[in-house]
Amino acid sequence: MPGNSFGEAFRVTTWGESHGRAVGVVVDGCPAGLEITKEDIQRELDRRKPGKSEFVSARKEEDEVEILSGIFQGRTLGTPISMLVWNRDVDSKPYEPMKSIPRPGHADITYTLKYGFRDYRGGGRASARETVGRVAAGAIAKRLLAALHNTEILGHVVEIGGVRAREGLSVEEIRRNAERNAVRCADLNAARKMEERIREAKASGDSVGGIVEVIALNVPAGLGEPVFDKLDADIAKALMSIGAVKGVEIGAGFQSARMLGSEMNDEFFINGKKVRMKTNRAGGILGGISTGEPIICRIAVKPTPSISKKQQSVDIERMEEVELSIKGRHDPCICPRIVPVAEAMLAIVLADHALRARNARLNAKE
Amino acid sequence: MPGNSFGEAFRVTTWGESHGRAVGVVVDGCPAGLEITKEDIQRELDRRKPGKSEFVSARKEEDEVEILSGIFQGRTLGTPISMLVWNRDVDSKPYEPMKSIPRPGHADITYTLKYGFRDYRGGGRASARETVGRVAAGAIAKRLLAALHNTEILGHVVEIGGVRAREGLSVEEIRRNAERNAVRCADLNAARKMEERIREAKASGDSVGGIVEVIALNVPAGLGEPVFDKLDADIAKALMSIGAVKGVEIGAGFQSARMLGSEMNDEFFINGKKVRMKTNRAGGILGGISTGEPIICRIAVKPTPSISKKQQSVDIERMEEVELSIKGRHDPCICPRIVPVAEAMLAIVLADHALRARNARLNAKE
Amino acid sequence: MPGNSFGEAFRVTTWGESHGRAVGVVVDGCPAGLEITKEDIQRELDRRKPGKSEFVSARKEEDEVEILSGIFQGRTLGTPISMLVWNRDVDSKPYEPMKSIPRPGHADITYTLKYGFRDYRGGGRASARETVGRVAAGAIAKRLLAALHNTEILGHVVEIGGVRAREGLSVEEIRRNAERNAVRCADLNAARKMEERIREAKASGDSVGGIVEVIALNVPAGLGEPVFDKLDADIAKALMSIGAVKGVEIGAGFQSARMLGSEMNDEFFINGKKVRMKTNRAGGILGGISTGEPIICRIAVKPTPSISKKQQSVDIERMEEVELSIKGRHDPCICPRIVPVAEAMLAIVLADHALRARNARLNAKE
Amino acid sequence: MPGNSFGEAFRVTTWGESHGRAVGVVVDGCPAGLEITKEDIQRELDRRKPGKSEFVSARKEEDEVEILSGIFQGRTLGTPISMLVWNRDVDSKPYEPMKSIPRPGHADITYTLKYGFRDYRGGGRASARETVGRVAAGAIAKRLLAALHNTEILGHVVEIGGVRAREGLSVEEIRRNAERNAVRCADLNAARKMEERIREAKASGDSVGGIVEVIALNVPAGLGEPVFDKLDADIAKALMSIGAVKGVEIGAGFQSARMLGSEMNDEFFINGKKVRMKTNRAGGILGGISTGEPIICRIAVKPTPSISKKQQSVDIERMEEVELSIKGRHDPCICPRIVPVAEAMLAIVLADHALRARNARLNAKE
Repeated sequence: MPGNSFGEAFRVTTWGESHGRAVGVVVDGCPAGLEITKEDIQRELDRRKPGKSEFVSARKEEDEVEILSGIFQGRTLGTPISMLVWNRDVDSKPYEPMKSIPRPGHADITYTLKYGFRDYRGGGRASARETVGRVAAGAIAKRLLAALHNTEILGHVVEIGGVRAREGLSVEEIRRNAERNAVRCADLNAARKMEERIREAKASGDSVGGIVEVIALNVPAGLGEPVFDKLDADIAKALMSIGAVKGVEIGAGFQSARMLGSEMNDEFFINGKKVRMKTNRAGGILGGISTGEPIICRIAVKPTPSISKKQQSVDIERMEEVELSIKGRHDPCICPRIVPVAEAMLAIVLADHALRARNARLNAKE
Repeated sequence: MPGNSFGEAFRVTTWGESHGRAVGVVVDGCPAGLEITKEDIQRELDRRKPGKSEFVSARKEEDEVEILSGIFQGRTLGTPISMLVWNRDVDSKPYEPMKSIPRPGHADITYTLKYGFRDYRGGGRASARETVGRVAAGAIAKRLLAALHNTEILGHVVEIGGVRAREGLSVEEIRRNAERNAVRCADLNAARKMEERIREAKASGDSVGGIVEVIALNVPAGLGEPVFDKLDADIAKALMSIGAVKGVEIGAGFQSARMLGSEMNDEFFINGKKVRMKTNRAGGILGGISTGEPIICRIAVKPTPSISKKQQSVDIERMEEVELSIKGRHDPCICPRIVPVAEAMLAIVLADHALRARNARLNAKE
Repeated sequence: MPGNSFGEAFRVTTWGESHGRAVGVVVDGCPAGLEITKEDIQRELDRRKPGKSEFVSARKEEDEVEILSGIFQGRTLGTPISMLVWNRDVDSKPYEPMKSIPRPGHADITYTLKYGFRDYRGGGRASARETVGRVAAGAIAKRLLAALHNTEILGHVVEIGGVRAREGLSVEEIRRNAERNAVRCADLNAARKMEERIREAKASGDSVGGIVEVIALNVPAGLGEPVFDKLDADIAKALMSIGAVKGVEIGAGFQSARMLGSEMNDEFFINGKKVRMKTNRAGGILGGISTGEPIICRIAVKPTPSISKKQQSVDIERMEEVELSIKGRHDPCICPRIVPVAEAMLAIVLADHALRARNARLNAKE
Repeated sequence: MPGNSFGEAFRVTTWGESHGRAVGVVVDGCPAGLEITKEDIQRELDRRKPGKSEFVSARKEEDEVEILSGIFQGRTLGTPISMLVWNRDVDSKPYEPMKSIPRPGHADITYTLKYGFRDYRGGGRASARETVGRVAAGAIAKRLLAALHNTEILGHVVEIGGVRAREGLSVEEIRRNAERNAVRCADLNAARKMEERIREAKASGDSVGGIVEVIALNVPAGLGEPVFDKLDADIAKALMSIGAVKGVEIGAGFQSARMLGSEMNDEFFINGKKVRMKTNRAGGILGGISTGEPIICRIAVKPTPSISKKQQSVDIERMEEVELSIKGRHDPCICPRIVPVAEAMLAIVLADHALRARNARLNAKE
């Protein structure tokens, strides 16, 4: 019943408050014998780390992962993998004045209403820092998927502040370009405009949102459980569980609402010994089960709620209305940093279903 | 690990194939003492039933629910509530020729790839008929929510085949109009155009998609569990698990990607002894926890995949490419019939979280 | 959170009250492709059915199972298998006078205290009739285990009313004799004495308890999950969840408390290419994981609480003390009828862990 | 599906290998607002710590708990409580020669057969050191139970090596005496004999087993979920999941198999406004639900498998039979150290069900 775990067979539990001692994760259910190094995990954590770029917050998160259990002689033991990152460079002072003043667009108000009190320092449990655990777990999921099916996960930004990347970017372009610019956009022209758009918002004490796409290649057909734990249903949950995400779509997504059946349906053909689809408007999933075509998902990311512009709030201790202007270092656009988190969540869902699918038939094929 | 159950505290398990003996559901975890009648459930089932309208399939589903357990002397016992609806008026003959020919856009191919074989009659488990169980369980969830918090769930169609309902429909309009027309659109002008649009698609052997909105009123603040079982994450899963849904959004949804932080954030004010929000772009959820404002979600529904237009498929027994034209009675647009299903899924998520929230604090308030 | 389901990968959910419309079960997670017939299930149900014997209650339970879903053309589909048995020959009148008078040793009092009210007819949900669903699900589990590993489950009575079966009964004797006498004891001499002991108890308006042993042969090594879902832990839960069971032991069980380490430890030797154990005091489980030796468990079954002797109770409506003498047909000893139920529960645990074990390693061996 | 978590509403996940970096636990689902200090947890950990006594192993486990999350300003936040204890004073050298030689009675062989390889140092995950996490979580469960219902948990040793404590020890005697002697036996005469018995076993390079009893006082009526998650079923699982436990019984337990119904049934009487039982052979549980009387459970603990006497084993690398004599520091009897672990597991089950019971009725009473 508690909500801090995700996955049935590959089960991830995160813990930690932003300004507490540490944040961490326990991954239970990873099969024994998977080769994995600390570097595999650190690499992914470094991708979500706030860097020197002007678009991300300046907190110096070292984020060096410590692996505490579950890996022995370079391979997983089949036992829980516990990992943590210590919270350092923490300055809780800016949060003191806002102790009883919920920030609009943040979870401050809802945590207080739910639990009666909250750790107000740095957003507490509702901080983006919680995603450290997700990304570390996602690194293991990626290794597992690669070992099982040679699956590859790619994420990139396709829209920021109304600026859209070119349609029809190839997988090669995404692989080549997405990690090479500050906004993680594979269309380098659009990337420059997005950066400009972020700068403008920042200058006016405001923030912008955008759209992130995550893709999985080499996903075998047959992943996903009817009828509630459909692959797309679990992906939707996984991605919507990331803070700031307000929408999820698979394949043609909301566009499909405006298409005819004859435009939407992906027709079949035979390719060697395999049934393939001519198009992939389904985004790699039919009836909640993977088709073997690439999995394609997009998420709507709202603009960062922490803005320096004046906003109306209330002091919930004194129950009076107050004005609030949020100081300090905040990403004016979180889309680029959400990319590795969204990849991690997609990887976790696919790893979970890759294991679950081993029990679909009496006689395992694989 | 199996995928046919949903919910942690209020747990729904559906079973049944479209042309098997029956379809049904077991609801476990409903507290004892809830007053409920067969009519409460039948009323909801009748709403999803194909009717005399020209837009829905002509199968005469009687769909009379039988309550087999869990209710005694008009009240729930606290034990599992088992309900079923027999499958009658079943004609499996039209499916015989397509036994080994997967229909584009359907789960035929993926079930075969996953399980090695499938019940090809009427779509088997992947049929829309599976939602009978969801709607019956949703009827109980609605009663539970009404008894606990006076919560009300409303669903309506906001777009079909590119025709959009007017923006800013009031709750009163939705309550008054949505159930009064064949497309369940609360904007009666748009409704007529939608009907026209469906007729056109049908005439050309094609189908159309659309967008459905579901709203929950009187949802108390504090529902939703950080960090994975966020209220919006569970809603996203619940709604995406409905066949034909390709996208889910909450509040401003994909629009939020194009907004500034200052436009997106909902500012606070004091109303009596309560903290309220001036706007509701968040759709009633912040940090995964309900704010007390209405919950607002929209889903993208793809056009019905069963179309009479010729499509390319393959015979997977003989492994050769074939042409397919699907005969028989099929809704040219399933949006209207998805309304009660989406309401049911939202109700199930909220009922689940209403129970889970009772354990948020040491000293229950309620 | 609700308690009517058991198992993680092979998941069983039972429903139904003793004098309601029906009792039933949904089995979710059985892999596709398992051959199974209605007879496989009916045979097990017939074993738990009250028969003509003088030692079991006289209710004519026809208990004909109806399979409603999940099996197609003689094989499992991978979808939920829903089964039910209608409640017929139900006479609720004898329960009317005891509506507000809890029977000592029964769940009447605790259901009332928990739920506020209860279905008093025939014990409601707490009736032994609930085990119909367990036995039906167990029949599928047995088939699955046989198909996967050639596993065989055997149950027999080893003690009733203080009369013990001979020590050291061979598997062959159990197979041959246990089902051939009314008390299901494989030692035919002891069986006669047990029958005599039951007759005496019955004559004096009393009842007797006993001990049932269940054994699983051909269980592969490696089943069971550290550290909480140990194989023996799940078996203990499964068996203790059967009404009237007050104790569970594995292998040497409570005897191990009086043994030396050198007497208890099972030494290893090499048999062909396998590591085997010279003795099996561990009962086939070490560290919560199966060793490959037979699984051996015993349960303590209390005497039937329904006795005609006068007992002190209270009328909880009028809150006054009353005397109670329970009329009607009740087994003076339920051990024989618990045998198929205990077998079913052991089978369900093993089937669940057989599936879970498929994910123990990166590269499935099997 | 993975096995390292326990509990539905109050969920405990342990991690860590004996000679890895650390061992720890995440407790999810503890309601917000519970006052708890590090000392509350440390006190329980100190009780399981090997001490100066001659009967427990000499490893200097400092076992100082670090609380990493979930507690703020002395109260639980409602978020996961992460705790760890570093592994220090670790000497893995004695385990090197036994790398490929499984110790009889240990999990060495089964982990290898399950996972293909294992962390052989100090027993790895199967070490008693794993219980550090259980005891830390149990400390929180005890605090929660005390705050909710004033529940008290008591554990003591009732038998070691055939020496039994006096029957009919009072709660006061257990409270007063159990923690005052090295074997945790509340009968001080028996305690001396038990100590003698352990000394003899140790002198002959052998070990002894025994029986531990755990009791819960002030458990409200109504805890436990029919039909699988019965309170006694979950207790049986919880206790059987402790290494070395081979049997579990509730109330009269295995004795009930030899009793008449009229002897076993607990008769009712009225005490003020409450229905009470004259006797408590049921051990506080009827139909899987607590009666309000004390919960009484006993477990059979096998003798420590690590003995210095020569034993037959096999070298699984070279597949040849070898003789093994286990050197080093090992408790000749683990019963005394199991007491706090068994208390912890009982507390976790009761805390879990105390939370789950809040949803038994539409209108919470509490």
